[in-house]
Amino acid sequence: MKLYGYWRSGTSYRVRLALALKGQEIETVPVNLATGEHREEDFVKLNPQGLVPALDIGDGRLLTQSPAIIEYLDEALEGPKLFPPDPWQRAKARQYAALIGCDVHPLQNLRVLKRLQDPLGHSKEEAFSWAAYWITIGLQALEETLEQDDQPGPFLLGDTPSAAECYLLPQLYAGRRFGAELGGLTRLLEVEAAMNALPAVAAAHPSRQPDATE
Amino acid sequence: MKLYGYWRSGTSYRVRLALALKGQEIETVPVNLATGEHREEDFVKLNPQGLVPALDIGDGRLLTQSPAIIEYLDEALEGPKLFPPDPWQRAKARQYAALIGCDVHPLQNLRVLKRLQDPLGHSKEEAFSWAAYWITIGLQALEETLEQDDQPGPFLLGDTPSAAECYLLPQLYAGRRFGAELGGLTRLLEVEAAMNALPAVAAAHPSRQPDATE
Repeated sequence: MKLYGYWRSGTSYRVRLALALKGQEIETVPVNLATGEHREEDFVKLNPQGLVPALDIGDGRLLTQSPAIIEYLDEALEGPKLFPPDPWQRAKARQYAALIGCDVHPLQNLRVLKRLQDPLGHSKEEAFSWAAYWITIGLQALEETLEQDDQPGPFLLGDTPSAAECYLLPQLYAGRRFGAELGGLTRLLEVEAAMNALPAVAAAHPSRQPDATE
Repeated sequence: MKLYGYWRSGTSYRVRLALALKGQEIETVPVNLATGEHREEDFVKLNPQGLVPALDIGDGRLLTQSPAIIEYLDEALEGPKLFPPDPWQRAKARQYAALIGCDVHPLQNLRVLKRLQDPLGHSKEEAFSWAAYWITIGLQALEETLEQDDQPGPFLLGDTPSAAECYLLPQLYAGRRFGAELGGLTRLLEVEAAMNALPAVAAAHPSRQPDATE
């Protein structure tokens, strides 16, 4: 298997975190989103969407979309289960993941912030402010939902990290970049700290990837 | 179980389709997004995100996020499986669902189109054009991906509908509303026709809900 990704792509970071939690390593192939490598013919031939991450499962078959990749890796690889065995907690892991994956991340994606600037005519600062808004209200709702669901720590669903943490860390990372208000997210920041105390998780951080430029 | 939803909400329509394919009916509770009922205290106390759909599983516990609800219903209810038993086709069903659920739908959601208008200052026509753009390129990529994956018809993954169809129909419905270019989507339109030939699926259409106003 090999994973096409980009160091700062939040969805690539998600998949790296899933592999870290599974205790697995696979070959990674950098696709430079900053220089537009994902829109070049070779890559679009591979993935018509022209997006990362994309997982080549080894026989030329390609799987895209991080939610599908994470479910597939959890089913296919050895290691701790990222989707809890209890049906209700499994549903909750998927709910927290989708809250970020559907209601927050897509609105602050690179291509969306670019389109706000051209052709919509907004400044980079206005685009960042748009991103910060959706991250702030989305993560605040997740913080409140965890309390309402009475989920014990130190992780989102108790004493074991799940797939949902793979969505949370990249979103907090992007939140800082775009100036979202994260100060009130006591519970979520505790989960982030508990995650980053795991060496494999810390090594999945964007800044520690071979293609990182900052 | 009871489902909080809104007739024209694409994500509520998804869950209705999942129930239709499972051959199950559950109580539905309309939440009027047009009059802002989802932002009123009673509903926000229930779901801090203030969004539909939301599934009350019967003992007061609430599950939100349509991807999590559909996986949960598929696991919990009798009826045909919405996620194929073959691991690769199951991954592909999740990929096609997430392509729409993460890369198309969130960008044309009501709250996003509203924010483009206020405070960003765009006209309703510009907001609709933004929506049409993301729907057009997203569904075009899905059409190409199906061809690349060599998926047989009449449904997305062969002769049985899957969870992915639950995402496709609402997105085509919204695409028409916002003026997306759907003409070239031969394969996707065939899937839609095959789906709508199923009476329970046709009955899940927004126009046929009790709270529909158009």
